[in-house]
Amino acid sequence: MERRPMEPETASATPHLDRIDSPADLRRLDESLLVPLAAEIRADLVESVSRTGGHLGSGLGVVELTLGLHYVFDTPRDMIVWDVSHQAYPHKILTGRREGLRKIRQAGGPSGFTRRTESEHDPFGAAHAGTSISAALGFCAARDRLGESRHVIAVIGDGSLSSGMAFEALNAAIETTPRLIVIVNDNGMSISPANGALEAHLRGQGGPSGAWFTALGLKWLGPVDGHDMDAVLAVLRAARDADGPVAIHVRTEKGKGYAPAEAAPDRYHGVVKFDPETGRQHKPINVAPSFTDVFASTLIRLGEADPTVVAVTAAMPSGTGVDKFAARFPERAFDVGIAEQHAVTFAAGMAAGGLKPFCAIYSTFLQRGYDQIVHDVALQRLPVRFALDRAGLVGADGATHAGAFDVGYLGALPGMTVMAAADEAELAAMLATCAAIEDGPSAVRYPRGNGLGVPLPARLEPLVIGRGRVLREGTSAALVSFGHCLGNVQAAADQLEDWGVSTTVADARFAKPLDEALLRRLAREHEILITVEEAAMGGFGAFVLQYLARAGLLDHGLKVRTLHLPDTFQNHDTPEAQRREAGLSAAHIATAARQLLGRDAQRSWLLPPPVSADWAFG
Amino acid sequence: MERRPMEPETASATPHLDRIDSPADLRRLDESLLVPLAAEIRADLVESVSRTGGHLGSGLGVVELTLGLHYVFDTPRDMIVWDVSHQAYPHKILTGRREGLRKIRQAGGPSGFTRRTESEHDPFGAAHAGTSISAALGFCAARDRLGESRHVIAVIGDGSLSSGMAFEALNAAIETTPRLIVIVNDNGMSISPANGALEAHLRGQGGPSGAWFTALGLKWLGPVDGHDMDAVLAVLRAARDADGPVAIHVRTEKGKGYAPAEAAPDRYHGVVKFDPETGRQHKPINVAPSFTDVFASTLIRLGEADPTVVAVTAAMPSGTGVDKFAARFPERAFDVGIAEQHAVTFAAGMAAGGLKPFCAIYSTFLQRGYDQIVHDVALQRLPVRFALDRAGLVGADGATHAGAFDVGYLGALPGMTVMAAADEAELAAMLATCAAIEDGPSAVRYPRGNGLGVPLPARLEPLVIGRGRVLREGTSAALVSFGHCLGNVQAAADQLEDWGVSTTVADARFAKPLDEALLRRLAREHEILITVEEAAMGGFGAFVLQYLARAGLLDHGLKVRTLHLPDTFQNHDTPEAQRREAGLSAAHIATAARQLLGRDAQRSWLLPPPVSADWAFG
Repeated sequence: MERRPMEPETASATPHLDRIDSPADLRRLDESLLVPLAAEIRADLVESVSRTGGHLGSGLGVVELTLGLHYVFDTPRDMIVWDVSHQAYPHKILTGRREGLRKIRQAGGPSGFTRRTESEHDPFGAAHAGTSISAALGFCAARDRLGESRHVIAVIGDGSLSSGMAFEALNAAIETTPRLIVIVNDNGMSISPANGALEAHLRGQGGPSGAWFTALGLKWLGPVDGHDMDAVLAVLRAARDADGPVAIHVRTEKGKGYAPAEAAPDRYHGVVKFDPETGRQHKPINVAPSFTDVFASTLIRLGEADPTVVAVTAAMPSGTGVDKFAARFPERAFDVGIAEQHAVTFAAGMAAGGLKPFCAIYSTFLQRGYDQIVHDVALQRLPVRFALDRAGLVGADGATHAGAFDVGYLGALPGMTVMAAADEAELAAMLATCAAIEDGPSAVRYPRGNGLGVPLPARLEPLVIGRGRVLREGTSAALVSFGHCLGNVQAAADQLEDWGVSTTVADARFAKPLDEALLRRLAREHEILITVEEAAMGGFGAFVLQYLARAGLLDHGLKVRTLHLPDTFQNHDTPEAQRREAGLSAAHIATAARQLLGRDAQRSWLLPPPVSADWAFG
Repeated sequence: MERRPMEPETASATPHLDRIDSPADLRRLDESLLVPLAAEIRADLVESVSRTGGHLGSGLGVVELTLGLHYVFDTPRDMIVWDVSHQAYPHKILTGRREGLRKIRQAGGPSGFTRRTESEHDPFGAAHAGTSISAALGFCAARDRLGESRHVIAVIGDGSLSSGMAFEALNAAIETTPRLIVIVNDNGMSISPANGALEAHLRGQGGPSGAWFTALGLKWLGPVDGHDMDAVLAVLRAARDADGPVAIHVRTEKGKGYAPAEAAPDRYHGVVKFDPETGRQHKPINVAPSFTDVFASTLIRLGEADPTVVAVTAAMPSGTGVDKFAARFPERAFDVGIAEQHAVTFAAGMAAGGLKPFCAIYSTFLQRGYDQIVHDVALQRLPVRFALDRAGLVGADGATHAGAFDVGYLGALPGMTVMAAADEAELAAMLATCAAIEDGPSAVRYPRGNGLGVPLPARLEPLVIGRGRVLREGTSAALVSFGHCLGNVQAAADQLEDWGVSTTVADARFAKPLDEALLRRLAREHEILITVEEAAMGGFGAFVLQYLARAGLLDHGLKVRTLHLPDTFQNHDTPEAQRREAGLSAAHIATAARQLLGRDAQRSWLLPPPVSADWAFG
């Protein structure tokens, strides 16, 4: 089977790799060919990712390790569980997905992470950090009880080891199974340089390297140079033949073998398309700053005005923009590692101690700290400010990174203030609002990507709590937007006006507390009311419905609908395609309103017929 | 100020304690009096808790430690953060709450845990495990930046150290602050004997005791005998004067000084009222088994029928009933420690590996595993079965332990099946349903306490997924119950029938998937529809409203209300009083329906006027 486009006139640059369709092919290769094969994989990976964008540095760092694993172990019978799995591109190349990589993270192409539905070589999907050892122990427990003999290997980075669940799993390991292999892929990095005491311990602080692991009853092998193919093979064979749970310390270099990535491993962790010759990434020229940038610049302004403002990030200083605040106020920024639970309660302690903490965590990762938000923050009404970047759909990052559930899981908490920013100016104002809220927690969600180019407020004034705004007044349809879907809602209103439907557009700003006066007026003065949010069911729309019901505003035939994310995990795609799939494009919103107003409204309006391209402006 | 009832005829049995209203009084005492004072505190604690019930063994174990802390440190300027804080009864006795303890966990009395609103000596509230070090680091960070000099001390049990967030905090400690004191109160127990490798390490496995801590950069002092007052004072003074973050290993005995509790520390962890002479607890005679018992017996039946059924508990074997399953199938039960994150993903791994895991975790503690439920279970549609004990209101355990949010946070997840048991027979059937669901995760919630005494099904047949049941048919009012509030809903229907209101009562059984056919029929055939659940906003009622809206069933004037827990954290009280406060008594439900049906319905129906006792039957 041809796996590459035919290039009959030239010799292939990847002669060995071209013969490998599966790990079984690899294992038929002479051991001496693994080193040239590693070079081929690196070249293929750089070339492939340069066309698509994606995760690069982590994959380059584990080429020898990946080869060694598939060479020494009988995969897929033996199972490899990749932690986070952004480093699994070489694994994908070796497991029949080399061509697929050309469409990675695109519609119909493979995911940027391991995925059970994608390959028998992906026994467990991942994307959030620290899950691999728990999952591997689950496979071990199943193996032990079902009379199987497979090896189970968790490959976890030093950065991921800072997550509490990785410790929980290591702590449970020796009591769970007699046989487990944990590979500590130590490259000294999370996305940014890794921190925490365990990180220092891997470099020799606090006793002999590995003391932390051997204290937990694990055997400790290594350290070995993860780019020395022979050493890698030897230690993997030793682990394969060891008794008892064993951990291997493998030192690797993020970006290994590609000079630009070696020189700046943080910037080549995840990349957009780039020139493989120079490494120059084709960053689009943005007229508007990203929401992340606006968060960062606003936090600095708040920090300049109030010396008690501090910031917490969980291993995402650049992703969240906390790095900029840290550059300005080094003593007032904390990167606690991939440790969202600690981040939240640490912030709670700082709030109780008299500081003003902003806890900047992506919506999807804040799920890690949910109990802490409930138990340590909300119950005590501590003024921790949560900045939820990447709320809603996240495009190529896919379902694992979507921030779908935050509105519901935060909005259900007594005393929590929940905001969503429609644009970057509103984000700035909402952050100022958070800073001003002293008697309880507050949260503001905002999307991945760039703002709309609107000017930021010259003065940072807090918003009135629980007060929305009306952008246009109409008489028939009320569209109530929560967050960054406002643009589509306004476009839908334009379309409705074209159809002769007098439309009100409101920006709710708050999911909690709701602007009850505004909702009451809109409910009384319109035939229909539609809420729109880029969040799951049980969120803003649900709260609005529960309020409208409680206030008796549904008793007299107001037609109401709540548009939200569909009840599925949406695959990676462009954000625009994801929004169309979700039924949240401007066209969908307008169609929903039209159908709701019409006498002959279809009951099946939630899935309107395919929209013709000429008015699919959403 | 007199702090005890006058007993003029007899000499006080607690002469030293009687002179202590605050730690300042304690610090004026000669050091030699601390030993007799410890005995007095123990006597007072046993006597007090024997009258009220509450946590006993942990408090008895830390009497000397508590005395030492308040004697050596300048509390409340120096701050003690008690982990979980069920061991804080002696702390409450010494900080002005000795009399209050007579009403502990009762309406108007102190909480069973530390609470910021209760005393300046409680800088941070707790109840869930593992939060103290994070909170203490927050106080340290605030202290360091605000130019204060106070000491901050976290007191954490060895059991709590198994929680990942405690590790996250320890890992961050040396980078966060130059000064922190962590006291490892090592009694070898969670509620049940503690497990995990770290536990064994504290007893010498895997290198020198403390190697795990020193690897993280902490100084390690001890072990000391936590009941040797002089040794405790000495080590606390050493820690006070140490440079850098320091951890102290204090060995204590749970139940120390009270023979019945020493003999059976698990049974005296938390107690009901008991005879202080004999230790015999006044367990009420129950005609019906507890929901926990029914979970245990049903799981055993399922395990007998299917050898792949396994059970996971996070340090709550007796609380969840997994201990009984473990006794029957020792190789098929896993206690992973206070490690809910690992528990969930470990179960996911077992499901992927071919087993049928039941993950038995209290509703409130499952919040700890939320991201794992989203990312490792639901996204991969892995058939992990969640058994959520203590769902809803939990009486004396109070707000920290209430299971309020599960319906919303689980119901928002694609592919999740969410059930709630109205009675113990339904619980058994729902567990059988979970066992039968192979293509995705499922959850069943059930309350704290006893069942209704209904017979359990002779054969365990799964329910039809997404199908509710109708218990009585009427024409005017439809009451749709989700879970154990069904009894109050039926009583409300009785009252409504007495008032001449023809009432339908449905038991929805499923919050996800909803019984849409049933809801459609009920909406069409009734004037009003009221949902009832013992869960927060954004849950079952919200999902019903979103469905009714989507299906156009609200368009024609159906009057609908969703009754749920109020948007507050409810204090500890009796469950009945909590339900009345929540507006979920039968009287409230009936009143809500009557007002909704009446032409002159008050808009403020959610807070009906105080109900007269003669018909407050809920």
